[in-house]
Amino acid sequence: MTSKPKIEIVGATGAVGREFLQLFHQRSIPHSRLTLLASERSAGNEMSTPYGNHTIQDLAKFSFSESNVVFFSAGGGRSKEFAPKALHEGAVVIDNSSAFRMDPDVPLVVPEINGETITPNHKLIANPNCSAIIMLMAVAPLRSLGKIRRIIVSTYQSASGAGAAAMEELKEQTGASLRGEPLEPKILPHPYAFNLFSHNTPIDANGYNEEENKVIEESRKILDMPDLLINPTCVRVPVLRAHSESITVEFADHAPSEADVRNVLSHSPGVKVMDDRATNTFPMPLAASGQNDVLVGRIRADISNPNAINLFVAGDQLLKGAALNAVQIAEMMIQKGLISGD
Amino acid sequence: MTSKPKIEIVGATGAVGREFLQLFHQRSIPHSRLTLLASERSAGNEMSTPYGNHTIQDLAKFSFSESNVVFFSAGGGRSKEFAPKALHEGAVVIDNSSAFRMDPDVPLVVPEINGETITPNHKLIANPNCSAIIMLMAVAPLRSLGKIRRIIVSTYQSASGAGAAAMEELKEQTGASLRGEPLEPKILPHPYAFNLFSHNTPIDANGYNEEENKVIEESRKILDMPDLLINPTCVRVPVLRAHSESITVEFADHAPSEADVRNVLSHSPGVKVMDDRATNTFPMPLAASGQNDVLVGRIRADISNPNAINLFVAGDQLLKGAALNAVQIAEMMIQKGLISGD
Repeated sequence: MTSKPKIEIVGATGAVGREFLQLFHQRSIPHSRLTLLASERSAGNEMSTPYGNHTIQDLAKFSFSESNVVFFSAGGGRSKEFAPKALHEGAVVIDNSSAFRMDPDVPLVVPEINGETITPNHKLIANPNCSAIIMLMAVAPLRSLGKIRRIIVSTYQSASGAGAAAMEELKEQTGASLRGEPLEPKILPHPYAFNLFSHNTPIDANGYNEEENKVIEESRKILDMPDLLINPTCVRVPVLRAHSESITVEFADHAPSEADVRNVLSHSPGVKVMDDRATNTFPMPLAASGQNDVLVGRIRADISNPNAINLFVAGDQLLKGAALNAVQIAEMMIQKGLISGD
Repeated sequence: MTSKPKIEIVGATGAVGREFLQLFHQRSIPHSRLTLLASERSAGNEMSTPYGNHTIQDLAKFSFSESNVVFFSAGGGRSKEFAPKALHEGAVVIDNSSAFRMDPDVPLVVPEINGETITPNHKLIANPNCSAIIMLMAVAPLRSLGKIRRIIVSTYQSASGAGAAAMEELKEQTGASLRGEPLEPKILPHPYAFNLFSHNTPIDANGYNEEENKVIEESRKILDMPDLLINPTCVRVPVLRAHSESITVEFADHAPSEADVRNVLSHSPGVKVMDDRATNTFPMPLAASGQNDVLVGRIRADISNPNAINLFVAGDQLLKGAALNAVQIAEMMIQKGLISGD
């Protein structure tokens, strides 16, 4: 007998919230109730879902006392305010924001990598940063080939990471640019049409921005490698919904062969090798969009360092980078009986 | 008395050819004759220039016996076929193609870096690859701060590097994408609207593509550092005319301080530091487009390696990456009396 949990989605109207609904339907996630929650502003609105129209309810007035699992995807502020309430009222919380990720008592989980860190005592699970997830899907399996010492990564991040409004802004600005009309940045700080810019998060004293610091700290936690060296440069490119990353992985000793890397990645769940030199076919955001798997290619020895190899990856930021990973966490917890239901 | 050379442009109708004409005018390059040359297909067409309309002449039928300097920008094949003829007939040739760049008898020149390699015996000068020029404008000045050992670079290259038709394709495809119409790649091998892909050049046995191998080999030649280690990953992004690059520079010993790097770059000709952490203002292709200077920012210590620093650069591929650098070579040679005229 499969249990049928009562599921709530906080931030249902956002880009990630919509993906949750599609994924529940596609993956036949059992549930006895599905509630869409948002701020007072959206409450009362109807929203079309794969299960028919749902009326959005006001998060601030909602009681979680019947809830089995609550997915939060409405920003760190909303998570900090309402996740403790949901937990207190007995629900399991899977949080897509950065609010609790670095809390030592909260597992930060990519199921394929460290799903085993969730124990029956854990009621709050954090879903990692999208750039970290997509990078680690390709890098983590390589631990079987040698000790990883350092990662150098430059990202090519899509609009979706800044939400549905940023995706809309990219399309609108690009249309305006093609018509020769002026660009008007509203959501993002810089013109976005046919442009790219350093990730728009505050910058630390060390010169790294918040996104880069998340990649460093979260990767160390997920891999349980507190000393792992990581040098990230995070860049927003005019792409709609998949992040790409150029990655150099440096091992403590001589790097594994290209063939061994390709072989390990070919057998890694959630990863698809796309690496055809003859036809110049490698991971691209359009190929990754809508795909559950993270695409990996440009697998080659680092010509400048015998201990390093290079990879180029692309993964759907809204799927494996956000909603899919959270749904996979829930699936694992349902299977282990850590999320119950009717 | 300034000499007034007779100047010819081969490939005048291309994206770089048009920039030559603008630059001659802006920089008041003296000339007693200016001839636009192209293939038989374009010969006889009128072309608007800052000096009025010019009739394009047939390259195959043209005699260079009166020419003082010929700019070639019509692909390697055209340069290989006609540059020897121009040289034989007594002209100086400045070649924007890759045809002669690695010939040990041909100087490969970025004037700010190695202008002194041109001697009176040199009649053929090669203009380097755009990605190499833009990277080296930021990296070469750092040699004054320590011995550079290794460069790791991931590029964000614009459509202009593949010519005017690729720029048009990006615009057309993006318009089609916004209208929900299918994309039809013609010039470039992959869909380009809201997408990015590995540089579309043939791939070597080592897994590096031709663009990456050019960055390696040409940088070593320009810097006269045959053992310099370089690990490039070249990527085409949906941007029109400026290349960006995420660069990690590793020194043989402890890296110079951020302040020293910023100071040296602030005083380097052809470089403009754009590095404001408070307002998140760093090099962007739109800011670099139409600018002669290469923009440099994200200057910071590599958090993963005490011997390394990071940079992010953006430079106009058609200007410093191509036409401007070639015009600067000509200016230097005119000044030294190596290009004569009436």
